[in-house]
Amino acid sequence: MFVSDNTSSVCPEVMQAIDAVNVGDAAGYGGDQATLELGKAFSAYFATQVAAIPVGTGTAANAIALSLAAPRFAGIYCHQNAHIETTECGGVESWGGGTKLMPLPGAQGRLGADVIRSALERLPRGRPQSAPPKVISITQGTEAGTVYSLSQIGEISALAHERGMKVHMDGARFSNALVTLGCSAADMTWRAGIDVLSYGAIKNGGMCADAVVVFDQELTDQAAFVQRRNGQMYSKMRYLSVQLLALLRDGVAERNARHANKMAERLSRGLSQIPGARLLHPVEINEIFVSLPPAARDRLALAGHALQLRAVLDDPHYRFVTAWNTAGDAVDRFVATAIGSKVIPAHA
Amino acid sequence: MFVSDNTSSVCPEVMQAIDAVNVGDAAGYGGDQATLELGKAFSAYFATQVAAIPVGTGTAANAIALSLAAPRFAGIYCHQNAHIETTECGGVESWGGGTKLMPLPGAQGRLGADVIRSALERLPRGRPQSAPPKVISITQGTEAGTVYSLSQIGEISALAHERGMKVHMDGARFSNALVTLGCSAADMTWRAGIDVLSYGAIKNGGMCADAVVVFDQELTDQAAFVQRRNGQMYSKMRYLSVQLLALLRDGVAERNARHANKMAERLSRGLSQIPGARLLHPVEINEIFVSLPPAARDRLALAGHALQLRAVLDDPHYRFVTAWNTAGDAVDRFVATAIGSKVIPAHA
Amino acid sequence: MFVSDNTSSVCPEVMQAIDAVNVGDAAGYGGDQATLELGKAFSAYFATQVAAIPVGTGTAANAIALSLAAPRFAGIYCHQNAHIETTECGGVESWGGGTKLMPLPGAQGRLGADVIRSALERLPRGRPQSAPPKVISITQGTEAGTVYSLSQIGEISALAHERGMKVHMDGARFSNALVTLGCSAADMTWRAGIDVLSYGAIKNGGMCADAVVVFDQELTDQAAFVQRRNGQMYSKMRYLSVQLLALLRDGVAERNARHANKMAERLSRGLSQIPGARLLHPVEINEIFVSLPPAARDRLALAGHALQLRAVLDDPHYRFVTAWNTAGDAVDRFVATAIGSKVIPAHA
Amino acid sequence: MFVSDNTSSVCPEVMQAIDAVNVGDAAGYGGDQATLELGKAFSAYFATQVAAIPVGTGTAANAIALSLAAPRFAGIYCHQNAHIETTECGGVESWGGGTKLMPLPGAQGRLGADVIRSALERLPRGRPQSAPPKVISITQGTEAGTVYSLSQIGEISALAHERGMKVHMDGARFSNALVTLGCSAADMTWRAGIDVLSYGAIKNGGMCADAVVVFDQELTDQAAFVQRRNGQMYSKMRYLSVQLLALLRDGVAERNARHANKMAERLSRGLSQIPGARLLHPVEINEIFVSLPPAARDRLALAGHALQLRAVLDDPHYRFVTAWNTAGDAVDRFVATAIGSKVIPAHA
Repeated sequence: MFVSDNTSSVCPEVMQAIDAVNVGDAAGYGGDQATLELGKAFSAYFATQVAAIPVGTGTAANAIALSLAAPRFAGIYCHQNAHIETTECGGVESWGGGTKLMPLPGAQGRLGADVIRSALERLPRGRPQSAPPKVISITQGTEAGTVYSLSQIGEISALAHERGMKVHMDGARFSNALVTLGCSAADMTWRAGIDVLSYGAIKNGGMCADAVVVFDQELTDQAAFVQRRNGQMYSKMRYLSVQLLALLRDGVAERNARHANKMAERLSRGLSQIPGARLLHPVEINEIFVSLPPAARDRLALAGHALQLRAVLDDPHYRFVTAWNTAGDAVDRFVATAIGSKVIPAHA
Repeated sequence: MFVSDNTSSVCPEVMQAIDAVNVGDAAGYGGDQATLELGKAFSAYFATQVAAIPVGTGTAANAIALSLAAPRFAGIYCHQNAHIETTECGGVESWGGGTKLMPLPGAQGRLGADVIRSALERLPRGRPQSAPPKVISITQGTEAGTVYSLSQIGEISALAHERGMKVHMDGARFSNALVTLGCSAADMTWRAGIDVLSYGAIKNGGMCADAVVVFDQELTDQAAFVQRRNGQMYSKMRYLSVQLLALLRDGVAERNARHANKMAERLSRGLSQIPGARLLHPVEINEIFVSLPPAARDRLALAGHALQLRAVLDDPHYRFVTAWNTAGDAVDRFVATAIGSKVIPAHA
Repeated sequence: MFVSDNTSSVCPEVMQAIDAVNVGDAAGYGGDQATLELGKAFSAYFATQVAAIPVGTGTAANAIALSLAAPRFAGIYCHQNAHIETTECGGVESWGGGTKLMPLPGAQGRLGADVIRSALERLPRGRPQSAPPKVISITQGTEAGTVYSLSQIGEISALAHERGMKVHMDGARFSNALVTLGCSAADMTWRAGIDVLSYGAIKNGGMCADAVVVFDQELTDQAAFVQRRNGQMYSKMRYLSVQLLALLRDGVAERNARHANKMAERLSRGLSQIPGARLLHPVEINEIFVSLPPAARDRLALAGHALQLRAVLDDPHYRFVTAWNTAGDAVDRFVATAIGSKVIPAHA
Repeated sequence: MFVSDNTSSVCPEVMQAIDAVNVGDAAGYGGDQATLELGKAFSAYFATQVAAIPVGTGTAANAIALSLAAPRFAGIYCHQNAHIETTECGGVESWGGGTKLMPLPGAQGRLGADVIRSALERLPRGRPQSAPPKVISITQGTEAGTVYSLSQIGEISALAHERGMKVHMDGARFSNALVTLGCSAADMTWRAGIDVLSYGAIKNGGMCADAVVVFDQELTDQAAFVQRRNGQMYSKMRYLSVQLLALLRDGVAERNARHANKMAERLSRGLSQIPGARLLHPVEINEIFVSLPPAARDRLALAGHALQLRAVLDDPHYRFVTAWNTAGDAVDRFVATAIGSKVIPAHA
């Protein structure tokens, strides 16, 4: 329970779209109607002309996005806790033909323009020693469950573009961050200087379709080759494309994300009541990082919850994640168990 | 029409399995019940202990299978028309970290043990000039719509193992070949010396799940890392695993394949009646390679069929492919159009 | 004897240059005086502004040259007997991050514009199936000991540039071809459309320095990074640069090559007298490919010569190579041994 | 002056060896007499059977050594200031086919077994998220001019082997560390658990030959292929091999290193007299890291010395390096300039 948003099922709108497209034959490899619509739908969603590539996993999205954004000899700045650095097993480096991740520290999961600037200044000048940094990759919402403000994104992009670098956003929890900021998808991306985006749909009610969204038209030339070569050219692509279409339509993505965020807030409010519990970061999306007293941990374990201790930066804690389908009741029962109360707290 | 088996829809058994698994939460990244069953189901199907890795595309299956079978500095013998050589945009080479495909000729789409043996003999001895061949990859059914006999597979495997090489089977149309040979899945694979298989399900009624099936236990150590790194560790893997389970269960895969093969036979019988038409290869699975007289081609084009001229080896021809959902009527109408007959031929 | 031009020693001019530069300290990694001069010397030699990168082996030269010329997802057309295809163990593919060699046949070791054109025409249009061909690589003099004429090079380049491809020349035996054609270095390269050259010096009297010569200024941006990353940024680079300077100065390279060619001609004239001997190709540089009768072979073997039978394209034969330091006497004695004569033939 | 040991010339013993081997023809690609002797010479030097591969640069040595030691999907622990991490432009990652460097902090340039152990404990268990760490790479002497003690090396190796990892030593300044410890080459390597070594000769009087020395026989199978493919199979290898032979013979390597170390000590003693100067690390080999007051810096700059400010870890300082050919007088004059004295200090 609350282990990840990846454990959730597929939302009804997505399932219906898959069922509906399963009629007769359709051109393969993205020549179908749904995939053709997808470019238009994403362009409308972002209020600008974009290229959109359906992919099967977030790792594939990041590896393709960064492979397009970074020349093969390049370095990529990212947060030291970035998913691409810690959890994707070298996918970005390998698909990029040997690009090099250059992790940097940053409070609350956020990379700051100042930290990147001083890293740039430490590089040897005019000598090919380090892989030359050509991309900055940020995660929105972050791996710490926080959100970059528009001005924070803008500062990073300004620095990047001033130095001839591109900016990538890992949007595995894109919609969760978007509803927190309450801005438009355009504001949080290209208007803030983002060149290429990994658009996350799977954690947000999808089945097996995220997307690479390319704002910078220069980066699209090689896209189809990179996609094919890396095993992401789905022959029956319509079944992936409709998942994305279903989430973009009628605000489904935002509705799903808003629910997940709300459940996280409810969970964090509940757990905060436990004496000795401490939130490591403000809860701004659907993730909670919390240090729990041993008694609370034991009560949860006894009740059958599998808790995984995390110790990034030597501060042992637990991560809990909510999803589009998290029930308020389940949150309340979990909190009651942790507190050791027999009474489920009335939902505030 | 008949452009590819990839244009077909998803068969009912697979759709029902997907619908059925969409209930509640489940562990991510393959920790779910369906994925755990998958290993057992494939082991039962092949009558031996295997590891099975669900992947999203055939290119991913081949690239992972060959990445496991081949050391990074290795050469891989394959037919010069092999899908990995002609159509996967360097996927095998790139995921393998620079393995080298070494294409060889062979009549009717088949690689012969003798051709491989003489290629081995032409290699410089004791000098690291060529990438050292470590794997032979064959396609069953072949890219020419033919099938290797068990003894042909056995001869290749015997040669490979005698020289310390592994054998990979690209089974994009595995079931189509299997029902033609009428043997067991075990007979066509590990009993004939196959070490690792790309098991094709997508062309045969699946949606987005093929599988890498590993017979040689030595090759499984790195599998999870290769899968993750290459963007094939689906977080909601249950939705892929159930597709494969549905096809393995109750002979669905074989039933689908048998139908497709039968339709190809019907189509080839029909087209053969056209004066001047000529089949390039015996029709042994669900693909037809045929040289058509200009008049027949024009009649089909006029009726709106998109025909793509192919000129591998300077023999211009057309490829037609049937699928699990090809209707006999459609075949007959297509033939009638090609013939220029107004009467749909009675089905023999 | 005559096994390769790589077995030869270093010519006096190169040795003297190395001795002369071994005085005091000098800036590392190419900041030294000799390396700075090298760009000017190559620019003067080619009568145009070039970038020149000293490298330690021919494989390094080819891999860096092609890594600069080819985008990472690209295909490279080359002759099926090209050194990069048969002898460099995947170096080009691996340094290129997964570029794909696409070998083609061609008589007398030469690739023809017509063969390339028809390969281009066989590619599927508008679909990312094959690695997209972006470079043509030719070897001058060829692996068959022949030479492309200026118009043959020009035709290939014209085709390449018309299709947006770059042209690479593997000039492992550049000077040998140059003196045969009797033209200028500029004529044989950029004036004929060559974009990047592997300039061979080692076989021609050098010790451990070949060079990548870049004519197309677009390709130089990444050069230093590619050089460093691939272990070719020699810290004491002056010792490599002076080798190249010594060969470029006063026609030393041409003199060495002319001598080697002359010795090959003498050897081929001698061996041609043997009844049953047959030259496979015209002898246009310093290599001979000859089919010898068993008696001649046995006499040579008995006299202690290590002969290596070669069977490319199923025509068994021997290769003999002469060098800058091959003595005329040694040629004559070798021929006499093969003929079975006790009298060394007077040199015509 | 004192910019790097790479700016030094080639020592007389190495030059004489190169001159002496330049006689007549010799088998290419390492089939020559000198290269055959090299294996024996290194085996005698290390008092055990080793394989020795001559290479042209330190980057090539590290990339080949780590390519042999690390499976392609692996992670490599190294110090965050390690040359492979900061200065080799992604060479290790790229030749390894996508291995991942995992830098860790450590005082005085040394990696500690405890820091590695706690990094291992932070890894997610049983899940393929991080590249699995398979190698620890240490630099002896370190990038901070310090030296690991034998017991420090032993602790790291013990940890590595206990966890199934290999240990690599980057010995760019191997001999400098060796004479400081005063132990045998065997003690500092395999007896302390080192599996593969980058043996540095170039900075220590060589011209263009370092070596990969493989202690773990398991790692040698692929060596020749990796060497060829990466452009390090020198055709006239004898000219590299004799450089290494000359340094191994009669204690030349140790004599050169001892001199360089002594000069560094003299320089550090001199600079330490300057009020406000501060050594960042103990001076244990031929490198000095020193913080200088502005006046001293200005005096040196005014006298024409190019000083490069370094700011690793936000502590601005200068690095000075001595070499086998550093003259005591030059050291004294440099110190006098920095001090602002007109009198060259008498050498203590």
